[in-house]
Amino acid sequence: MSQAARPAGPANPANPANPANPASPAKSADLVDAVKVAVLGCGTVGGEVVRLLTNSASDLRSRVGARLELVGVAVKDLDEPLPLDGLDRSLLTEDAVGLAGRADVVVELMGPIEPARSAILAAFAAGASVVTANKALLASHGPELYEAARAAGVDLYFEAAVGGAIPILRPIRESLAGDTVTRILGIVNGTTNYVLDRMTGEGLELADAVRQAQELGYAEADPTADVDGYDAASKAAILASLAFHTRISADDVYREGIGQVTADDVAAAAATDHVIKLLAIVERRGAGSPPEGVIARVHPALVPKSHPLASVRGAFNAIYVEAAAAGELMFYGRGAGGRPTASAVVGDLVTVARHKVSGTLGPGESAYLGLPALPVSQALTRFQIRLVVKDQPGVLAAVSRVIAGEGVSIEAVRQTPGAHGRGLADLTVVTHQATEGALQKTVAALAGLEVVAEVAGALRVEGE
Amino acid sequence: MSQAARPAGPANPANPANPANPASPAKSADLVDAVKVAVLGCGTVGGEVVRLLTNSASDLRSRVGARLELVGVAVKDLDEPLPLDGLDRSLLTEDAVGLAGRADVVVELMGPIEPARSAILAAFAAGASVVTANKALLASHGPELYEAARAAGVDLYFEAAVGGAIPILRPIRESLAGDTVTRILGIVNGTTNYVLDRMTGEGLELADAVRQAQELGYAEADPTADVDGYDAASKAAILASLAFHTRISADDVYREGIGQVTADDVAAAAATDHVIKLLAIVERRGAGSPPEGVIARVHPALVPKSHPLASVRGAFNAIYVEAAAAGELMFYGRGAGGRPTASAVVGDLVTVARHKVSGTLGPGESAYLGLPALPVSQALTRFQIRLVVKDQPGVLAAVSRVIAGEGVSIEAVRQTPGAHGRGLADLTVVTHQATEGALQKTVAALAGLEVVAEVAGALRVEGE
Repeated sequence: MSQAARPAGPANPANPANPANPASPAKSADLVDAVKVAVLGCGTVGGEVVRLLTNSASDLRSRVGARLELVGVAVKDLDEPLPLDGLDRSLLTEDAVGLAGRADVVVELMGPIEPARSAILAAFAAGASVVTANKALLASHGPELYEAARAAGVDLYFEAAVGGAIPILRPIRESLAGDTVTRILGIVNGTTNYVLDRMTGEGLELADAVRQAQELGYAEADPTADVDGYDAASKAAILASLAFHTRISADDVYREGIGQVTADDVAAAAATDHVIKLLAIVERRGAGSPPEGVIARVHPALVPKSHPLASVRGAFNAIYVEAAAAGELMFYGRGAGGRPTASAVVGDLVTVARHKVSGTLGPGESAYLGLPALPVSQALTRFQIRLVVKDQPGVLAAVSRVIAGEGVSIEAVRQTPGAHGRGLADLTVVTHQATEGALQKTVAALAGLEVVAEVAGALRVEGE
Repeated sequence: MSQAARPAGPANPANPANPANPASPAKSADLVDAVKVAVLGCGTVGGEVVRLLTNSASDLRSRVGARLELVGVAVKDLDEPLPLDGLDRSLLTEDAVGLAGRADVVVELMGPIEPARSAILAAFAAGASVVTANKALLASHGPELYEAARAAGVDLYFEAAVGGAIPILRPIRESLAGDTVTRILGIVNGTTNYVLDRMTGEGLELADAVRQAQELGYAEADPTADVDGYDAASKAAILASLAFHTRISADDVYREGIGQVTADDVAAAAATDHVIKLLAIVERRGAGSPPEGVIARVHPALVPKSHPLASVRGAFNAIYVEAAAAGELMFYGRGAGGRPTASAVVGDLVTVARHKVSGTLGPGESAYLGLPALPVSQALTRFQIRLVVKDQPGVLAAVSRVIAGEGVSIEAVRQTPGAHGRGLADLTVVTHQATEGALQKTVAALAGLEVVAEVAGALRVEGE
């Protein structure tokens, strides 16, 4: 495990010499009285960032040790209305890439991939540090951005990319740097948590709950990124990369959204004292016992009502972290919205600006472990399988035989009179822990059984 | 609000030149291959820190960018048994102060004030950075230690002093640096939370619950520091100082332990859907409307069962933070114990060692706001007052008149047949928000009423 053998660049977090940073000669502690800030994107979050920079200017100056000077705001269209009053319109530009080259710190809040990526690379090339909330970009182009930041001798910070206002990335990357994170379970998408919460509280079907979320502004007109788990998968990749010192991209994350979750599933979960949550789960498998690696997955899961994640309501987020020495930790708060997200962005901005003032850098990419991303079939989980079976002798024996045949053992079985008509019964099976692969095979085998009329549902059980 | 006018030293967090650090010439990024670490104190936490340094040596090296070399462990008595096997006994010394002068980073885990304070000052004088978990020392001598660290150009880190393993100080001081913290409610003492939890769950009286906690190792033989709120008050002072950029010492914290909480109080709380928690509450009052200042207090309080803090069970800790832009945040985890505390200590150690490697410093004291500490009588809170009254006409009118006379208004009144014998009734009054001073006067005035036989309890209601 020597440092030289590690794949992803030096773990050494700081490069005080900053040789590639053309702006650095002017940045020594005695000379800097203002740090030039450019904000790219003036939507809900960008508007709040500009507002905080203006309204808290005096506090920020004390905390940074220099004035934060807003040198420009990039917008898509100069003629569009702004989300805040009183902004000097001469600061506005449509040229994000050009503006990125004129600042000490660039705050990127534009959009998913382009032109955000080009603007960030332009910022690095001009010696500016970058603060971004762009989870999709980080989860797809993270190593490229880290490498460009390292080469330029500047900072790349992105606390707001996961969990909105919740401080979670800094704690993982700095506070837990003396510990070994083993697993993270996160409710990282407020839209789907809101939708599932409404389904649980009011017995709604998914489509109705989504419509309600859209009416209240919790869901976009096209809710695909949230409902199908793309947003959560990006965040899972970012969490896994930091927690396990390994490059994990969104493509490495198994992804299953909440599209198949029915009111029936939610009711069945409640009947066994569970709630259904869309979880981002990243875990380190087999330290010592192969296969060693990282599994990252996003899917709906049954969570026991007694688990701290179960009581995370509405559009809130929470990230539950398990570490070898620290034990269980949970971080809870608002995962989206203009002001909460701006809080995280400006927090990063203060840190990065302090570094500019003192000529130092924060920790860069840490990917020294270079663990393989394992397929989801290797994940250990439990299933709750709901079957509609023929109401006749020998059914339980047949079902048990099939499950045992896949090497899976049963924790509990519950048979209830069926609501499905004469001659049918409901049978709910909860398994002990097994690999996802074996459990998927079990479900397929059960579906093929003559005594099984229907597999009404199969959901993973997590958080026990 | 110019920087020069601020009382507590420069907000500028880093001093890369490190002129007063005699060790710094050898500490440039290219030369350091080992950071010398001394651990002062080898009890439960110290033992686990040494164990982590040994077992995670390879990971820590990658994360720091240099080897962490354990140069000595200070113990009280060389002949006492150690909490871990396999430690090279030649590393042991009884001379903590001497050892502190031979390291790059000193981890202080010895005890409340002396010799911890002298050892830390010796470490600073010798150019070493310090990581400590010593809340009592920080809450009483914080400014002296910060100043000595600043003068020596070294770091002082103390994440483990509040909330054990929970990352809370770094998030407040760095992640929330772009926001304005308005209030923190913390369950920061695991012993009293365990005791109150047992009282709630099993209807125990305080003394029995404390005995149970002692038997299980959750409470010390002398439980005064926990039960009387001294431990929580130290933590409140630390939280307030960081959150409000103001020097707040333990002496500024109003302190009331759980010694007066009865099984009766706990049952009455449950009857109104509350639980009793010992809270550390720090808040910023009157930004804009005088009197402006900081109020820090520790006392038992009724918390609604629906509040996230209400479900914090056993010896766990949780810190609930309210900030202007972020909204509500909560940080949850293990607040004590060897391994969890060691996780926080070694996390700080990695940060401080990184700084040694790169010749930089983290943020120092930030006390630029210099707000006054206000007396608890200025705190805004609500009271639930339980009265035993004469069961006769006109009682409610008399009670209401007294309460109104103090300028306090009533939210709810509930009268129940008394369990106190013939002619008496129970009357529970919940007030609207008022100052602690007015509420205390109200309770005193009620106690003097002829129709009031007894004030059975008066507890603050928080978290609504």
